[in-house]
Amino acid sequence: MKVVKFGGSSLASATQLEKVLNIVKSDLERKFIIVSAPGKRNSKDTKVTDALIKYYKHYISEKDVTEDQKWIIQRYQDIANDLHLDNRVMEKIQKAVLSLATLPITDNSFLYDTFLAAGEDNNAKLIAQYFNQNGINALYMHPKKAGIKVTSDPGNAQIIPSSYDRLEKLSDLEEVIVIPGFFGVTQDGQICTFSRGGSDITGSIVAAGVKADLYENFTDVDGIFAAHPGIIDNPNSITELTYREMRELAYAGFTVLHDEALIPAYRGHIPLVIKNTNNPSHPGTRIVLNHSKEQQPVVGISADDGFTSINLSKYLMNREIGFGRKVLQILEDLNISFEHMPTGIDDMSIIIRDRELTPIKEEEILRQLTHKIEVDKAEIERNLSILMVVGENMMSHIGVTAKAASALSENNINIEMISQGSSEVSILFVIRTEQKNDAIKALYNAFFQ
Amino acid sequence: MKVVKFGGSSLASATQLEKVLNIVKSDLERKFIIVSAPGKRNSKDTKVTDALIKYYKHYISEKDVTEDQKWIIQRYQDIANDLHLDNRVMEKIQKAVLSLATLPITDNSFLYDTFLAAGEDNNAKLIAQYFNQNGINALYMHPKKAGIKVTSDPGNAQIIPSSYDRLEKLSDLEEVIVIPGFFGVTQDGQICTFSRGGSDITGSIVAAGVKADLYENFTDVDGIFAAHPGIIDNPNSITELTYREMRELAYAGFTVLHDEALIPAYRGHIPLVIKNTNNPSHPGTRIVLNHSKEQQPVVGISADDGFTSINLSKYLMNREIGFGRKVLQILEDLNISFEHMPTGIDDMSIIIRDRELTPIKEEEILRQLTHKIEVDKAEIERNLSILMVVGENMMSHIGVTAKAASALSENNINIEMISQGSSEVSILFVIRTEQKNDAIKALYNAFFQ
Repeated sequence: MKVVKFGGSSLASATQLEKVLNIVKSDLERKFIIVSAPGKRNSKDTKVTDALIKYYKHYISEKDVTEDQKWIIQRYQDIANDLHLDNRVMEKIQKAVLSLATLPITDNSFLYDTFLAAGEDNNAKLIAQYFNQNGINALYMHPKKAGIKVTSDPGNAQIIPSSYDRLEKLSDLEEVIVIPGFFGVTQDGQICTFSRGGSDITGSIVAAGVKADLYENFTDVDGIFAAHPGIIDNPNSITELTYREMRELAYAGFTVLHDEALIPAYRGHIPLVIKNTNNPSHPGTRIVLNHSKEQQPVVGISADDGFTSINLSKYLMNREIGFGRKVLQILEDLNISFEHMPTGIDDMSIIIRDRELTPIKEEEILRQLTHKIEVDKAEIERNLSILMVVGENMMSHIGVTAKAASALSENNINIEMISQGSSEVSILFVIRTEQKNDAIKALYNAFFQ
Repeated sequence: MKVVKFGGSSLASATQLEKVLNIVKSDLERKFIIVSAPGKRNSKDTKVTDALIKYYKHYISEKDVTEDQKWIIQRYQDIANDLHLDNRVMEKIQKAVLSLATLPITDNSFLYDTFLAAGEDNNAKLIAQYFNQNGINALYMHPKKAGIKVTSDPGNAQIIPSSYDRLEKLSDLEEVIVIPGFFGVTQDGQICTFSRGGSDITGSIVAAGVKADLYENFTDVDGIFAAHPGIIDNPNSITELTYREMRELAYAGFTVLHDEALIPAYRGHIPLVIKNTNNPSHPGTRIVLNHSKEQQPVVGISADDGFTSINLSKYLMNREIGFGRKVLQILEDLNISFEHMPTGIDDMSIIIRDRELTPIKEEEILRQLTHKIEVDKAEIERNLSILMVVGENMMSHIGVTAKAASALSENNINIEMISQGSSEVSILFVIRTEQKNDAIKALYNAFFQ
């Protein structure tokens, strides 16, 4: 049995929904369908979710919301008309959209989440109706009924583990179940949304709950590329990735799937496939626990900007028990998360995301390093990018590091720092951001051409 | 003005002392002479220091010490005879050696240090006498008189900073001052020795105190080699090293100078030269604050055995603020000093010296990692060596990492981990110990042949 998630661009129009129908019909194992809100039909279009945000803002500032309501309802109506849907579903959707503007504004910390979730929720109703009119015995199911219980953290809901047991019971149902993605329901019955990439999370949770054989994530690309197509022309698409590889790639710039979304599927040992709604015969990229056969050593190259390094040195640093811990304690006390910590003998670099470092925090870190830990030197280095060469099979191939470092040096790219841990799923280079694109090209040419 | 330290092998016999005399006489700037105890005259000989340890052990277990005393006195007597020294100095030495066996055994935490220090102390008396009989106006000076005040940590004395001010006044004296190395005197007037390499520390302290222009450290090699001569045949000797390079090399197996000995000279901005008593015209290796001219990118390659890695992984590790700090806290609570911490995205390796990890501590670390920090996986990896490619000029040469990694991979050496921080004084590779010698050869050939 398969859990299938469709992204917003796959659900943006009647034409797209016809593809979705065919995909679901073509495989009887596709029993759970997780849907996003309708996405953009073209580059100038507005996403339903963005329209809901506007509607919410007007509503809480007590402005006229009639136009907002009309636009949103019409968006669903257009699709319903094109698909010749029974009018009863549009009556339900219309009522749901209008009723948002009757919810209490004050002391309602879930209001924003409730507005947002309406995009997915109404789309699920529409799609279930469409399926039923076209030969699929489908059942729309609200997350409350499905049993997706979450914590009361608006915009950042966490699944409550008992949900998995309730979800498991759904496997007995005969219908194809259509569940809106992106949100769950709190103990008090409030709508509460997941963080970004939320429909992916719902799919991942449902897949783990019903113990699916496969979680199919339909998007608008033929899977995951070995390097960013904005930098490399027609990069190879990856046939198979492990969860660990996916996570390493996602860390540095690969945003096809939000990495948090992977956790339930990963923990539930559910393999995942990323496929293209517009090209469903393409095998896509499978994400698995362990590679099925011998792979090449490097599966992908990713890079991300926006890193800063705190570089410090102190003579005989490594003789001082607790030195590293004290440095990290300073960061933790300032609520700063660090990414990496390459060390020399008397020096240490702490790599963090730019956004972690406000000017006040920066000053405080330098002050504490100098006065509390008495470093000989401390400085901040900005405009760094992290470059990752990823592949689980690296460990069985001597020379991947040499090949990567040579490719960089031959292209005059200076390696600022390197960190390669024992896992050897990746080698991490820190480079200057202005050399990033050249670095990706150099590595892609070395490993994939 | 120069501070000159002579090691034990440079002071082992009359022949050696004649060389020392000529070295001191040949340069009027050589005003402070720091001496070790007489070393071995040949490979089967006993060091005076080792004889003193035996003497101490027999004394505290109330055995007969006559033979020990006789051997030690005779050792100095032989030198004195060969050099035709005035007998009064031997009377003083004899008295000093015999009087050790009158010191209180109980409640005397400085007894061992006092025995040990006698090797240097008596040698300083002998050498001052020899200098005076041969045209050098020399003055033996006990560390107490010189003002070398230290903390009361037997075997691990730390200099008390006010010592530097007292030492500075010695620059006014006209004589060549001969000071025994290896020990200072506590506030209570007790003899207290430095840690290993102690005469080097005295030299370094005196050089910093008297603000010497140069600290000359005479030993029995023509300076520092670019790689271990036991592994590489006739390796290049290094002309100039910075303190930072020396420290990086010393970290992993280069033991010409004990790195702690470098601190006072480094902090006092005193350049240091390592020279050969048996070949004083050889320029030796200068250790300076900054390179005097453009150097090649790599100055040396060192390696050290006896490392263990604690490898751990946890999904979404880097999202958890304080994760790294908590791991290091576990180590610190167990009084374990860590060396390096290369990281991937969801994994981290903590490299420590083998000696830090007793079986009980190992079990405790794994227990806490699994239960307190809930890592997905934790394992211990042994028999690792650290390989360092060192050179301050690396940072201006793109491609050093590539060259090093290529040399290793071409010789089938698997790189287990890498850490290269922002300082770029060194690149650190972790490899399996059984591949160490091959790795050094590969790197030496790549950078020095």
